[in-house]
Amino acid sequence: MIKEGDKVLLYGEDGSKFIITVEANKKKGTHLGHIDMEELIGKKFGEIIHIGKKRKKFFLLKPTFIDLIFSMKRKTQIIYPKDASYILFKLDVKPGDRIIDTGVGSGAMCGAFARVVGPHGKVYGYEKRKDFYALAQKNLKEWGLLENVEIKLRDIIYGFDEKEVNALLLDVPDPYNYLEKCWEALTGGGKIGIICPTTNQVQETLEKLYELPFVEIEVWENLMRKYKPVPQRLRPVDRMVAHTTYMIFATKVLEKTGGVL
Amino acid sequence: MIKEGDKVLLYGEDGSKFIITVEANKKKGTHLGHIDMEELIGKKFGEIIHIGKKRKKFFLLKPTFIDLIFSMKRKTQIIYPKDASYILFKLDVKPGDRIIDTGVGSGAMCGAFARVVGPHGKVYGYEKRKDFYALAQKNLKEWGLLENVEIKLRDIIYGFDEKEVNALLLDVPDPYNYLEKCWEALTGGGKIGIICPTTNQVQETLEKLYELPFVEIEVWENLMRKYKPVPQRLRPVDRMVAHTTYMIFATKVLEKTGGVL
Amino acid sequence: MIKEGDKVLLYGEDGSKFIITVEANKKKGTHLGHIDMEELIGKKFGEIIHIGKKRKKFFLLKPTFIDLIFSMKRKTQIIYPKDASYILFKLDVKPGDRIIDTGVGSGAMCGAFARVVGPHGKVYGYEKRKDFYALAQKNLKEWGLLENVEIKLRDIIYGFDEKEVNALLLDVPDPYNYLEKCWEALTGGGKIGIICPTTNQVQETLEKLYELPFVEIEVWENLMRKYKPVPQRLRPVDRMVAHTTYMIFATKVLEKTGGVL
Amino acid sequence: MIKEGDKVLLYGEDGSKFIITVEANKKKGTHLGHIDMEELIGKKFGEIIHIGKKRKKFFLLKPTFIDLIFSMKRKTQIIYPKDASYILFKLDVKPGDRIIDTGVGSGAMCGAFARVVGPHGKVYGYEKRKDFYALAQKNLKEWGLLENVEIKLRDIIYGFDEKEVNALLLDVPDPYNYLEKCWEALTGGGKIGIICPTTNQVQETLEKLYELPFVEIEVWENLMRKYKPVPQRLRPVDRMVAHTTYMIFATKVLEKTGGVL
Repeated sequence: MIKEGDKVLLYGEDGSKFIITVEANKKKGTHLGHIDMEELIGKKFGEIIHIGKKRKKFFLLKPTFIDLIFSMKRKTQIIYPKDASYILFKLDVKPGDRIIDTGVGSGAMCGAFARVVGPHGKVYGYEKRKDFYALAQKNLKEWGLLENVEIKLRDIIYGFDEKEVNALLLDVPDPYNYLEKCWEALTGGGKIGIICPTTNQVQETLEKLYELPFVEIEVWENLMRKYKPVPQRLRPVDRMVAHTTYMIFATKVLEKTGGVL
Repeated sequence: MIKEGDKVLLYGEDGSKFIITVEANKKKGTHLGHIDMEELIGKKFGEIIHIGKKRKKFFLLKPTFIDLIFSMKRKTQIIYPKDASYILFKLDVKPGDRIIDTGVGSGAMCGAFARVVGPHGKVYGYEKRKDFYALAQKNLKEWGLLENVEIKLRDIIYGFDEKEVNALLLDVPDPYNYLEKCWEALTGGGKIGIICPTTNQVQETLEKLYELPFVEIEVWENLMRKYKPVPQRLRPVDRMVAHTTYMIFATKVLEKTGGVL
Repeated sequence: MIKEGDKVLLYGEDGSKFIITVEANKKKGTHLGHIDMEELIGKKFGEIIHIGKKRKKFFLLKPTFIDLIFSMKRKTQIIYPKDASYILFKLDVKPGDRIIDTGVGSGAMCGAFARVVGPHGKVYGYEKRKDFYALAQKNLKEWGLLENVEIKLRDIIYGFDEKEVNALLLDVPDPYNYLEKCWEALTGGGKIGIICPTTNQVQETLEKLYELPFVEIEVWENLMRKYKPVPQRLRPVDRMVAHTTYMIFATKVLEKTGGVL
Repeated sequence: MIKEGDKVLLYGEDGSKFIITVEANKKKGTHLGHIDMEELIGKKFGEIIHIGKKRKKFFLLKPTFIDLIFSMKRKTQIIYPKDASYILFKLDVKPGDRIIDTGVGSGAMCGAFARVVGPHGKVYGYEKRKDFYALAQKNLKEWGLLENVEIKLRDIIYGFDEKEVNALLLDVPDPYNYLEKCWEALTGGGKIGIICPTTNQVQETLEKLYELPFVEIEVWENLMRKYKPVPQRLRPVDRMVAHTTYMIFATKVLEKTGGVL
């Protein structure tokens, strides 16, 4: 049952989509007319409401995490779902894990980590810009995920407070400058993921990685292609995202590798 | 500290990889010589041991879930990490969710779901073949993930016992024959994911999906490309996986859509 | 030396591009000001002219065939350079060849074939729509390629006049209906190329192809990705073409294959 | 009609392929038995012969240029058809053109250029290694394409003899060292294509290109994917080529660009 305070994705028959937070006795204006929020309370997810004079149909859906991050206010480049999901898998994030995420940006990856590590885990976010820090706090609170996330307003040049974290995601313009600090924060066998939009960043980061005790160094990129879901004329869409980022992954070891990949 | 019963990934300086379960007073034969398991106990993940007369270095790593599924015994086509991770994200799987997975096959997706839904969630697996059923039970037990997974040896032609599940993954050769049963098991706003290796399956499945109350119907494919991690000569590897499967996603609604996508 | 009647690509320092045909004593208006065409005559390709009050620089370039087809008037979907060039190679088009192209559309592929078959070869175009026929005639004349192209205003349901052609390109919405006619027009060992934007067309076309004496049946698709040409931040562009068409290729033989691919 | 001296591609019902040159009164041994070449003479392309005791069917096909380059003896990395065909198009190669190709390697690109420029055009190949030079001569002679190709055994560090060539393909490990020499050889508005397998080569080459009078600087890569040609189960093949090379293209102008792309 939908109740006050719930987030609801309104999915219109015209393909329009927007997310609202249900507040009793409030109205929400849309391009089709006003929605009386009172009307939503007590309805089930999956039901229909009608809006405006033309009685346009809107399905009431529960917003997914992907819906939330694409509808949030953001000031930074977002990590795309295709990459975010792969990072969670490659960093082997699981309930109970302790994770560092830096830079936090709009907070989407902090949220993605927080959902998986659960109540017995913890996410430590580092962000040096005040405006991003405030935005991430706001977003995570809105998603109900702030409880097991702690964001610190700090430059990572001074290193991390945590030790023995299970995994660390490094998403800054100059990742090669912080790899030693990252290594120090990780537990033995812990995983690092590094976001590098350009080939130059990948090259410089790899060079530094080989100087430190890391193994299983891998570089990946991910091309997702959507299809027009028309059974009689099945074919990919006309245009797609060509690039978001390269992703580097590596595993911390406790002794110098002597050149082992 | 590594202790008896732990799984350890041995990662050799020659690039070789294998997983062992630590048992006191046992030896494990490798292509380089015997490993005395006693020696591993009390070591930390990330440390090195030396094996054989040539004292070859092996790093002691904690196997990730990806390591586990690629090293398990399997008799079926596996869902690749690139697809498995995206499915988790698109089905919006989170702690506490109740999920159906069918067919179970070797149990890898059951395990992937189980890790995320955590102790307050539940995964229901349906598998009609006895040998797969037994294999999945064995694999999930080995991964320590059987606790919140229940596998049923049954053909899904008779439908599912569960109602109001949050999400359902359908991985069978003829998905178009079970969509009505899937719809019945899902909660309003719940998500279905469908594995279709061929374009013919996608077409037939889409046709049936449009006859049922589903919205947000999407078809995706995922091309992951690895790079040679050499900073002075950065370039993709020579060959890559060209295709694993198409993935269909949709959301259950409670009323007929009248042709809305 | 640039002379009257030459086509010139004006490539501006602001990235703008347009093609003009040089006519003495004429002026051409642009968004930056008038170009006195007289001024171009006698200049070399690669030189600069200045336009307008702000003396904006424009390089004088010789338009390539790609420039010409992207700047032509067209009413139909164009075959992209990535596909057109591969088709030329797979159909093994060479000087002296006799080629059929159908449907002709805007004439771009007729032109591409004509350039390669040269003065001793011949391209036969079939087009059933009057407006396309007229447009293709106009475009090919403009490109100076009409001499060894003969376009026929005719539905291919009645077959082709030519026999023993070296290759044939079939670009119509229902290719599966004309494969027998195509087979009849080809020489033994001759090549057919078929344009199929959807998977459904590919499936239906393959089915018919296997019923006829064709071997070396192949299906391809081509993903071209452009990079931002910035040496310090080398990375792919943000968005790319996701799909143009699938391409089927096959070779005519003189006896039934009995199921040989 | 097949006659003495013709090259014939034998395409077997078991999918095997090989190319022979027809010589009267000779036999050719195959894995299935001997072929009496006499038997081929007078047959048409597309016809069948039967080989060996089991009377296995082989279709007589005319080898395409792709067949020839994949069956030739080669000591170097070949430029793949997907890239070779795109290069021909982007360099706007047409009958009558004068083209430089360096390094020549096994001669495949020289041959590809020679086929298009035709009898009124000319291809100048530069190759510094004696063994490659001899191999390319041999291959081009075999393909019947040596007439309008002239290969020079020389290091391009000393520049090119030709001036005002229409296009130039630069395929050497250190392209950034020869761009000035290339610029000198090209005509105004002429095209350069550069083969760079690694991102590092692309970066270094771009840097140098911007210092010289070149415009329309573009970087491309090409992913071709083949499908299993089975109409009832249409899907891509399992594995594909992940990378061959990046390709840079640019156009020579006669004056410094002052930073224009």
